[in-house]
Amino acid sequence: RSGEMAKLTQLIDNEVFRAYATYATIVLLKMMLMSLITAYFRITRKAFVNPEDTASFGKGESAKKYLRTDPDVERVRRGHLNDLENIVPFLGIGLLYALSGPELSTALLHFRIFVGARIVHTFAYLIPLPQPGRGLSWAVAYTVTISMAYKVLKTALYL
Amino acid sequence: RSGEMAKLTQLIDNEVFRAYATYATIVLLKMMLMSLITAYFRITRKAFVNPEDTASFGKGESAKKYLRTDPDVERVRRGHLNDLENIVPFLGIGLLYALSGPELSTALLHFRIFVGARIVHTFAYLIPLPQPGRGLSWAVAYTVTISMAYKVLKTALYL
Amino acid sequence: RSGEMAKLTQLIDNEVFRAYATYATIVLLKMMLMSLITAYFRITRKAFVNPEDTASFGKGESAKKYLRTDPDVERVRRGHLNDLENIVPFLGIGLLYALSGPELSTALLHFRIFVGARIVHTFAYLIPLPQPGRGLSWAVAYTVTISMAYKVLKTALYL
Repeated sequence: RSGEMAKLTQLIDNEVFRAYATYATIVLLKMMLMSLITAYFRITRKAFVNPEDTASFGKGESAKKYLRTDPDVERVRRGHLNDLENIVPFLGIGLLYALSGPELSTALLHFRIFVGARIVHTFAYLIPLPQPGRGLSWAVAYTVTISMAYKVLKTALYL
Repeated sequence: RSGEMAKLTQLIDNEVFRAYATYATIVLLKMMLMSLITAYFRITRKAFVNPEDTASFGKGESAKKYLRTDPDVERVRRGHLNDLENIVPFLGIGLLYALSGPELSTALLHFRIFVGARIVHTFAYLIPLPQPGRGLSWAVAYTVTISMAYKVLKTALYL
Repeated sequence: RSGEMAKLTQLIDNEVFRAYATYATIVLLKMMLMSLITAYFRITRKAFVNPEDTASFGKGESAKKYLRTDPDVERVRRGHLNDLENIVPFLGIGLLYALSGPELSTALLHFRIFVGARIVHTFAYLIPLPQPGRGLSWAVAYTVTISMAYKVLKTALYL
């Protein structure tokens, strides 16, 4: 079966596909970081949502007061959900785009701008930066995804 | 490296894979539209969640009153989250299904019904249509995904 | 075009890819189950969010009282969102990992631990188990995804 494995390896040897693999992994790791930031704020702000998470603070009323929402926790959670809403389309459309035979330089431009814009979006959300900082970074990543979708449909359309 | 590129292009030349690429891209674009609809309702209803988003309405109390929830905004957001919950499984299972060698006509039937049902679901959620309109459209798309999952496991099962 | 189909089928014939297909499908079906559990609790607890969903309980105030949040419903919804946040990275990074040429036994170890940990996480969330049950199962699946991301970047890095 090493012949088959070789064929699979060819996919990962293709430069456009390698670029997709690299940037998709980076932006997913960035999204995963949001979980750690949420946990950090929940613990430092003592703001939890599950009763079992506050058990170490004692029983009854003394623990119950930590079942509350905190503005910083909610802000990270909104950033995380916004990541899901925008990174899921990038993963799907970006994979199909990488398989649609784009020029390497064009593909790199799309992947780099998308990932860069989403990293800026995260900083803009968490600091927070004044608008339109967050709005613009969101729109840039959104537009890149639309551009890749256009290439996929132009290449592969089969209704 | 044009030889490798040719092999990649063969993937996108396969009709089942092209159909998957087309319908996955369409349903992802539909999901991305939810972001724009949310923004439209946030702006027209003046209902925001981040203080920095209301800065253009002035400072202090005059801006703070726009930090509120609005039923129309919340409705679009629920539709968006429901999209994520259902389109993510379609993306993953649908890709594997497309690679599992289904008949072209069977694959097209699955993809068309899924995407059609999710478009109906969006209208049913946003108008809103009386139940069981939304429930049925949700169940149809859900069942299509289960059917594709069955084919994937039947073809590829390796535990 | 049967020649092309044969090439596609080779992908699904590769054992690492088949293992990915199997475990990705299983964990997506597990995630989809959360929708049914949410619906079950919404109906048995009579706790709905959309006015049109309570129409069968009568009109006006008699139906309005069922527009409320319920702790069990909210718990399932949090588990579902946590699934999205963690299974989306697994789908993307796991696919790239499967294409990066890992040893079959190593790949199986990653996939089995991830899916096992996410199933434990669901039980820990829904029962609920005392902490650190849920936290540990979350951390195990998270670490497996990081390990696969490391292999992808080591094999494919192209910035």
